[in-house]
Amino acid sequence: MKIMQVEKTLVSTNRIAELGHRPLLVVREKVGGGRQVAVDAIGCIPGDWVICVGSSAAREAAGSKEFPSDLTIVGIIDHWQVDSPSPPAPLPPAGEGSGERPGGTEKGRA
Amino acid sequence: MKIMQVEKTLVSTNRIAELGHRPLLVVREKVGGGRQVAVDAIGCIPGDWVICVGSSAAREAAGSKEFPSDLTIVGIIDHWQVDSPSPPAPLPPAGEGSGERPGGTEKGRA
Amino acid sequence: MKIMQVEKTLVSTNRIAELGHRPLLVVREKVGGGRQVAVDAIGCIPGDWVICVGSSAAREAAGSKEFPSDLTIVGIIDHWQVDSPSPPAPLPPAGEGSGERPGGTEKGRA
Amino acid sequence: MKIMQVEKTLVSTNRIAELGHRPLLVVREKVGGGRQVAVDAIGCIPGDWVICVGSSAAREAAGSKEFPSDLTIVGIIDHWQVDSPSPPAPLPPAGEGSGERPGGTEKGRA
Amino acid sequence: MKIMQVEKTLVSTNRIAELGHRPLLVVREKVGGGRQVAVDAIGCIPGDWVICVGSSAAREAAGSKEFPSDLTIVGIIDHWQVDSPSPPAPLPPAGEGSGERPGGTEKGRA
Repeated sequence: MKIMQVEKTLVSTNRIAELGHRPLLVVREKVGGGRQVAVDAIGCIPGDWVICVGSSAAREAAGSKEFPSDLTIVGIIDHWQVDSPSPPAPLPPAGEGSGERPGGTEKGRA
Repeated sequence: MKIMQVEKTLVSTNRIAELGHRPLLVVREKVGGGRQVAVDAIGCIPGDWVICVGSSAAREAAGSKEFPSDLTIVGIIDHWQVDSPSPPAPLPPAGEGSGERPGGTEKGRA
Repeated sequence: MKIMQVEKTLVSTNRIAELGHRPLLVVREKVGGGRQVAVDAIGCIPGDWVICVGSSAAREAAGSKEFPSDLTIVGIIDHWQVDSPSPPAPLPPAGEGSGERPGGTEKGRA
Repeated sequence: MKIMQVEKTLVSTNRIAELGHRPLLVVREKVGGGRQVAVDAIGCIPGDWVICVGSSAAREAAGSKEFPSDLTIVGIIDHWQVDSPSPPAPLPPAGEGSGERPGGTEKGRA
Repeated sequence: MKIMQVEKTLVSTNRIAELGHRPLLVVREKVGGGRQVAVDAIGCIPGDWVICVGSSAAREAAGSKEFPSDLTIVGIIDHWQVDSPSPPAPLPPAGEGSGERPGGTEKGRA
């Protein structure tokens, strides 16, 4: 399964009937990564780090073997520490650059 | 599911009977990205941003469990904001460079 | 489905019985791209641009649900315009470089 | 199947019922590689190099055809020699650089 | 299907019962490429260039629909010419560099 972050809800008025009313969410594996669409089987909000199942298991996880999903959110991760995409510079100049750590944020949910 | 843009119809006179008369569309994830072929289960036109389902779910989404598709269009996205491939420069010279945002176009459909 | 070009036939004398006598073809997505093996369900010749279906749909497309294929050729594309891998230089020196367009070949089949 | 290393257990309180109480582990293909989540069908500990099966086979390997997994650990590798991501420099300066081989660690399990 | 080369046998004492006694082989698509694990349904030896089937077809190819494989060797390629990863320099200095062609080895099997 993939670890992805929920970005927002996706609105698609014109879609096949088999998708029903399941919410579709835009998710991405990391900041700046490619965006995909996942079916929400949990009830997520933007910012959540979630577990997404793909392949044929995504269908059953979305509710039934006939559901046309290839990416379904099956769990919300309690705490997730993002990998920093670029490591901090070895010797930052003293006196500045105190903030702005790239990546390295923690996402929790009660 | 993947977010892709419809480019054009693909003509394949010589094909297996199982494909029937379902339209085949050339789609791509982003401008300059690799092109793939998707079965249209909705009725799209070139330029549409669509949701494409892959894996085994693509078969059922195309109409039946026996349909030989591994990528099927299951919905048209109402509004889609393309990621800009290269971020804007941090400090553009004042007084010029007002236009020309790379990417950042919006695609709607009534 | 993927758009691939047929390169040649692959000979594998020592193979599992389930593959039967279906021809196996070496295909690639683009010139210089990685080569894969596809089961031919159409009757292709080297140079053809074809539609290859993967995932579980490749089995049924190859003839039966039990056929062990994960990539099956399901159609020959009537006309295909290859993407040029590198765009032409913006300002070529006048008077030379008239030919040699990279890529940009068209493949037809009566 | 993929060769991956177990990093840690993943806690997801809010998840679909079908996942049951099977442990979910964070795994990665190499140091610095992207992290994924696998269902543990063996009983692994952090640091183990394991065989992970994906696709539809991950469901059955996790216990039943209905289990919503697309990545399941099916075996622990007895001994695994990690590829060194960057080859050693051809001529290191004599007298220093004795340690710090990138990669190249061996992982065994009684 | 993928074209891969057999590297060696993989020993995994601690594995799920469903894998049975089928040999597991370490395979890679090219020299220096990432290593994966395939179930051997043919009887290969290190150095063989083989056809590996993935997706759900890998299960049936390994012997039964319940076999937990996502990569199964289904055939040995009679003759395989490796792509050279880097093309030869256009004009090598005369008098040296006679040998050492990168890649370009042929693998046959009686």
